[in-house]
Parts: sequence; C-alpha cells; structure tokens
Amino acid sequence: MTNPATKETIRICEVGPRDGLQMAKSRMETGTKVRWIAAIAAAGVREIEVGSFVPPRVIPQLSDTQEVVARSLEIPGFAVQALVPNLRGAQNAYNTGAHRISFPVSVSEGHSRANLNRTPADSIAEAKRMMQWVKAQERKMPVIAGCSTAFGCSIDGVVTTDQVVRVATGLAEAGVDEIALADTVGYGHPAQIKEVVRAVRAAIGDVLVGLHLHDTCGLGIANALAGVEEGIRMFDSSLAGLGGCPYAPGASGNIVTEDLVFMLESMGFSTGIDLDKLIAARAILHEGLPDEPMHGQVQKAGIPKTFRAAA
Amino acid sequence: MTNPATKETIRICEVGPRDGLQMAKSRMETGTKVRWIAAIAAAGVREIEVGSFVPPRVIPQLSDTQEVVARSLEIPGFAVQALVPNLRGAQNAYNTGAHRISFPVSVSEGHSRANLNRTPADSIAEAKRMMQWVKAQERKMPVIAGCSTAFGCSIDGVVTTDQVVRVATGLAEAGVDEIALADTVGYGHPAQIKEVVRAVRAAIGDVLVGLHLHDTCGLGIANALAGVEEGIRMFDSSLAGLGGCPYAPGASGNIVTEDLVFMLESMGFSTGIDLDKLIAARAILHEGLPDEPMHGQVQKAGIPKTFRAAA
Repeated sequence: MTNPATKETIRICEVGPRDGLQMAKSRMETGTKVRWIAAIAAAGVREIEVGSFVPPRVIPQLSDTQEVVARSLEIPGFAVQALVPNLRGAQNAYNTGAHRISFPVSVSEGHSRANLNRTPADSIAEAKRMMQWVKAQERKMPVIAGCSTAFGCSIDGVVTTDQVVRVATGLAEAGVDEIALADTVGYGHPAQIKEVVRAVRAAIGDVLVGLHLHDTCGLGIANALAGVEEGIRMFDSSLAGLGGCPYAPGASGNIVTEDLVFMLESMGFSTGIDLDKLIAARAILHEGLPDEPMHGQVQKAGIPKTFRAAA
Repeated sequence: MTNPATKETIRICEVGPRDGLQMAKSRMETGTKVRWIAAIAAAGVREIEVGSFVPPRVIPQLSDTQEVVARSLEIPGFAVQALVPNLRGAQNAYNTGAHRISFPVSVSEGHSRANLNRTPADSIAEAKRMMQWVKAQERKMPVIAGCSTAFGCSIDGVVTTDQVVRVATGLAEAGVDEIALADTVGYGHPAQIKEVVRAVRAAIGDVLVGLHLHDTCGLGIANALAGVEEGIRMFDSSLAGLGGCPYAPGASGNIVTEDLVFMLESMGFSTGIDLDKLIAARAILHEGLPDEPMHGQVQKAGIPKTFRAAA
C-alpha cells in the first residue's frame, strides 16, 4: 500500500513526561523519569517535552524539571523541550540548556484566566517580551507556542475559528518560531480540526506546524487523521495516553503515541520511531507510576502481522 | 460549524446484540437482551442486528435468536436484522419474520476455511442460491453481504485490494442488495480503507454501502472517518464497543456506537440517534453482563457542552 521511496516524515513530540505526569495522582521519581525519557528517545522519538518551568508549588509532579532537563541533555538523539508559562520560565529553561521551549496560550478567556491568570491578549504581550529576550541570546532556542482550547473550552464552551485565528496571528506577529493548535479538553471533531487548521494556515502560513490532541471523547486519533489530511506534519502525543483531563474525571489524556505511530507508519509516513521499542518503554512508566491507568490499543492487541507489509 | 439545512443522513446498524454478545464470556438472558434492544431502538437506532441463525452449539450466546427476533418484531421503529451463514439460515430468518439479513463472506482463504469451513468461491455460490430463494419469496427481505477480513487477516496476513474486489464483485453478481466491507480483525488503516472503498466502488458502484469496523488497534473511529470521507454512509458499531477479537485477547471489539454517533453528529451528519438515550442503554447491557468490559470515551468524559452548538 505504501511506497518507501516517497515516504514523508511526520514529527512526533512525546509530551507524557510533562502533560501526562502533570495529571498523575502520584509523583514519578526523578531517576525513573530520566530512564523513561531515555527509553522513549531510544525508540527513535526525536522531540520530548520533559518538564515545565512553573513554580514547584503549582505542579509538584514537575518540580524536578531543572534536574530532568539537565540529565536529559546527556541523552543523545532528541530535542529536549520544556514548557514555560512566561519570560522568567524561558530564562530558566535557557539557563538550564533546554533545546526548545513550548509556550501555552489559552484562546478562550475563561481557560486563560483559570489556568494562566491573564487574558489571551496578556499572553500575546508576554510572548512578545519573551521572543525579544530569546532572540537576543547567543544560543538559538526555538519557541513553539501552543494555542490551548482551540477547539472548545470546558469553561466558555464554544471557541470560534475567528478567536483561534486572532490568537495565532498575535503569536506569529510576536515572532514565535512555530505554532500548534491544542484541543486541550478534547472537544474537537474532525470537520472542525480541518476548518480551523485551514483558517489559521490562511492567516499565518507555515508557522502553523502542529496539533496537540486529547482523546477525551474518543476522537483523538480521528482528529489526528483530519490534521494529517490538512497537511499537519507534527503531533504531540503521550506514551500510554498518560494523563487525563482535569475537567472530565475518568477521561483519557493525550492521544496515545503508540497508536498514533501505528497509524502513521501504516499509512506510509515515516516517524523514525521503532514501535516495538516504544511499546517496551511502557514498562518503565508502569514501574514509576504503578497505579496510573495506561491506554493504547495496539499494545493490547499486539502489532498486526500486516504492519509495514506491502500489499 | 454545521448547517442543519444540509444535514446528510448516515445509517448506523447496532451489532452489539450479535457481534458483541457472540464474544461475551457469559450469556445474556433473553428477556434482558430484548429490553436492551428496545432501549437501543428507543434511542433512535433504526437498524439492529439482534442475533445469528447459526446452529446453537456453534454460538451458545445466540441460541435464542429465533425468540429474540420474534420479540424484536414487536418493538416499533427499527429494522430487525439477523446474521445467516447460509441458505438454511436465510430460510429460518425469513420464517421467523426478520426484516433484513446479513451474510458474511470471508475474503481471505484462511479465515474463510477457519470460520465458515468453505472457500470464498463456495460462499459466493451459496450467496447465489440464497438470493434466488430470497427473491422468490412473497415478502421482501433485503440481504446485506459482509466481506470479512477485507483489510487483513490474522491467519493469512495481508489481504489485497484485488481479493476484496473479486469477492465483492462475485457477491454483487449473486444479487445481494447491499455490501459492507468488514475489518474483522481490526488491522485496517485509514489510507487502506480509502483505497479499498474506492476500488470496490469502481467495480460494483453503489451496491457498496457500508463498513464494519473493529477498534482492535485503536484506529476504528479514524477508519470510520476515512470511510465517511470516501462517501460511506452506513456503519456497523456496537454499544460500549462490546465484544472483542478472538485472535487478540484484551483487544476491544466493534467501534463504539456512542463515540461514532458523537463524531458523526458533531460533524453535522444526522444519525437520528439521541446520544443521551443511547448512553442510558448501557445500563441494561451492564445489568445483563456485569463482568463484561465496556468501552467508550464520550460516556466517560460526559457529552461536551459544545455538542451540537453552532460556532
């Protein structure tokens, strides 16, 4: 079904060590976290969000981010990414040596106030300050801005395409290197993904690179497919779909990296990831957080014998 | 995001009472089964596969099919469908009063021999005999043939598009009313769904109406989306994704009706189904089979407040 000679690459950024652990009920020990990150990298994942430079009291599970970033830098083969909520976080990330940073901006007013205690306009102003500082540094540190609640908000409800376009445009003008659209609460559906991606791309072009999707309502992988069909070539995902949704107890978290890789590789895209090794990395996650539910269908079913076989 | 004036209909055939129960570890009591079917019908599902006219020793869970069909006929508002493996089954279904029958034909030799103890060519010959008999009867009883293992086989591995086209063409020539392609073991991926649907439609036109998908590897809903995008307007699915895969212990079963309806209605299609009532029907399933795992994300997360809200 696929022609290896024409394989197109899709980037996968593993966000389990940040978005997944931040929702976990207990705290993963730092040494285990670093071994887990190393196992994910060994499977061929080339971008991993390893932590978040937020005050330790806000997210205790990620209070060791500085150490995790430092030790991750010793693991070869992947870009060490950290989330930062503001300029100060960016400075901390830079000083620790992070290769890349992500900067979340809520599109909806309600989520923005609840989660970041500021308006979307405030966030764009912060992005501008941050980019000025980042670009003045000696070392290059690319910044990817994530437009949170781009497909709906558990507080405000509907988020319009115009709202997303406005925030994405503001961020592009602020000078961020890349932008991803995030279905933070998992309300999005495929037709909406396509509509919003098209509208944002019409406004900011190729600065839009990625989608950050949650599987809250079971549409995560279908939404990823919709993104692929609209030309998106970068996805955030989480090993074992670790995490959840603070607004929907029992709901699953980010889309499952294993299932996403299975789909993309089956369809003839190259992710650079070894699916067997990726599945093997689940063992360390389970060791570090034995009580955390682990999602993912391809691991349960076993990799089909038709995987990567030409028909 | 959607325009109610242009809503297109998508048919959903609930197959939980047949494909789901057939995989269940215990047997659902007949009265509970009928109440469950009534609850699904009350939610607006207009096609339900309520059982299978196979010898009771083959599938004990469905040995009450004759009674279930008879009692289902008293429930208003839906087409009572039964699976039949051969002409004799079709005769039993007709005599019991079934509105429609489904007839499975394995595309792969291995699955055909293991599951039906005959070759695909034998099945097509049986379809021909069956259609002659069915069409000679006074009452109309439409026949939908399902091409099993159309996207891969756990025994034979890869199933080629040509194999599917050959079997589908044979069935169309045998005179079946409708044809569905089944991803029996859940090996299919979206690009393959599109390729095979296109090829089969090129061969047999609009006799191809449906897809029967399993979520074995987590791609079920994405595969449904791929089908929708190729113009498929009929899907089999199962409440709570009941069932499983005999070849993959721990794997989930058919795609989850609730999640499928959530996606399709969100995208602006009309299924005629009330999602709240559909979710409520899970309670009877759980009552009848308390030990059976129940899948479905939208039920866990709760229906988002943006559902069916125009943006």
